[in-house]
Amino acid sequence: MTRFSLTLEYDGGPYMGLQRQPHGPTVQQHIETAVTAITGEPATFHAAGRTDSGVHALAMRAHIDVQKPLTAFRLMNAINAKLRFEQITVTDCVVVPDDWHARFSCIGREYVYHIINRRAKLCLDHGRAWHVTAPLDAQLMQQAANMLLGEHDFTTFRSIHCQSRSPVKTLNLLNVIRDGQRISIHAQARSFLHHQVRSMVGCLAWVGKGRWSLDDMRYALEACDRTKLAFNAPPQGLYFKHAVYPSDQARILERKDPR
Amino acid sequence: MTRFSLTLEYDGGPYMGLQRQPHGPTVQQHIETAVTAITGEPATFHAAGRTDSGVHALAMRAHIDVQKPLTAFRLMNAINAKLRFEQITVTDCVVVPDDWHARFSCIGREYVYHIINRRAKLCLDHGRAWHVTAPLDAQLMQQAANMLLGEHDFTTFRSIHCQSRSPVKTLNLLNVIRDGQRISIHAQARSFLHHQVRSMVGCLAWVGKGRWSLDDMRYALEACDRTKLAFNAPPQGLYFKHAVYPSDQARILERKDPR
Repeated sequence: MTRFSLTLEYDGGPYMGLQRQPHGPTVQQHIETAVTAITGEPATFHAAGRTDSGVHALAMRAHIDVQKPLTAFRLMNAINAKLRFEQITVTDCVVVPDDWHARFSCIGREYVYHIINRRAKLCLDHGRAWHVTAPLDAQLMQQAANMLLGEHDFTTFRSIHCQSRSPVKTLNLLNVIRDGQRISIHAQARSFLHHQVRSMVGCLAWVGKGRWSLDDMRYALEACDRTKLAFNAPPQGLYFKHAVYPSDQARILERKDPR
Repeated sequence: MTRFSLTLEYDGGPYMGLQRQPHGPTVQQHIETAVTAITGEPATFHAAGRTDSGVHALAMRAHIDVQKPLTAFRLMNAINAKLRFEQITVTDCVVVPDDWHARFSCIGREYVYHIINRRAKLCLDHGRAWHVTAPLDAQLMQQAANMLLGEHDFTTFRSIHCQSRSPVKTLNLLNVIRDGQRISIHAQARSFLHHQVRSMVGCLAWVGKGRWSLDDMRYALEACDRTKLAFNAPPQGLYFKHAVYPSDQARILERKDPR
C-alpha cells in the first residue's frame, strides 16, 4: 500500500462541497471515482478540511491509499486526465509515510476571503468573490478582527451543523487588507468551526459599513450565542488556501506575503 | 452634449474583441447598443486601446457623447443594468471636457500578461492565463525583457494587420515577476503595435524554457522581420490594465505595486 498526498485546486461553484454527499456531486466523489477507474480498487479520500458548496480551494491537501504500483507523477496525471472536464485539478502529488494523515496530521489551516467593494456589478470576479456595494472601512474591520484573535469560545460564529467537540478555538491571524476595490481577509488557525470564517467575515462587513460598532462585535463574541451573529458571508468569496504540516513549518515561516 | 469617460472591466472570452466587427459580438457593440437603448440616440464609442478576441480588461478607458441630460452615476447604473448578463461592467463613469479623447489624450498604456507555469491543467485560471507546462526561468526572461526596453523598431513583434504608422515604439517597462506557479509580465509604453505584447511574451517564454538564447532574442529584435518571431502568446493571458492620461500622472507615480 502506498499513501499519496494530493494538493487540490478547485472551483467550488459546480459542487455540493468537498465531502461526499448523497444528493449531488462533490470534489471527494470525483477524486474517488477517478482513482477507482485508474486503480480498479475502492478508494477513500481524507482531506485537511471540509469546504461547503461554493467554497473554492487554492491548495487543499488530501490523502488516498493505493495498492496498485504507481508513481506519484503517473497518479497525478491520470487523475487530471479523468477530471479534464471538471473544475478540479491535482496540482501536486507526493508519496507520504503511512502514518501521515491529511486531516489528523494537519496543524494549521489558512483561508482567504475576497470581497469586491464597489457599486458596479462583478465581472472577472463573478462567482469568485462577495460583492459588497456599501463602502467598507477596512481599517475599522481590522480593529474588529483584532478582537477575535487568540483563544475564544466561538459559538456565535459556529454553524448549528458543526461537529467539532469544542467551540473553543485559537485564531492566530485575521488580517484585513485593502487593495483598491478588493478587500482580502486572511485567517489562520489550527482548526476552525464549521462556517467560522464566513461568520467572522459577515460580522466584519457589518462593522466595515458602520452597521455594527466595535462594541457590537465584542458583545457578539462574548454572548456565545449563534442568534447574535450579524451575517454569514456567502461561500463564493472563500478559498481554502493552505494546510500546514509539521515538516512544512520552516517553509511557511519564510513566506513573504501577509497571511 | 456631455462627454462621459467610462472605465470598463471585461472578460474577453465571449467577444470578438473590443472594436465593433461585422462578424460577431464585441464590447463596443454591447456598450453602444446599451447607450442607444438608454438615450434614444445613436452612440459612438472610442477606447484607449483595441484588444483582440479573448483579451481581457481590468480598466479599459473609453468615452461616449450623450445629448440627453443624464448624470454619470445614472448612466453607469443604466449601462450595467442593460449588460447584466454580459461579461462587461462599467466600473467608473465621469464627465470629462469635450476635448478629452479616450484614445488621443492617452499618453500611456499598461498591460499585464499572466502565465501559469505548472504541469497540471488549469482550474481557477482557466481562460484567464496561458498554461505553460515546461519550466520557465523567470530571471532569464527578465534579462531578455531588458533588451526590449527603450526605443526600437518592433517590426518582428508586429501583426501583419497592424495599422500603426510607424513600427518604432518606446517600451518603458517590461517586468517579469514570478509568484509561485504564476509568472506575470507587466508592460508599459505610450502605445503598442498590434500583437506586440503577446509577441514579446511568446519570445520571452521561449527564452524561459531554454529554446532561445539571449542572443536569439537580440537577433529577433534587430532583424525587424515578422518571420523571425518565436511565437505569439495566446490571448487569454493578456489584460489591458490601465490607461494613463496627463492629469493621472501624479497618482500613477505614487503606485506601490510593480508595473
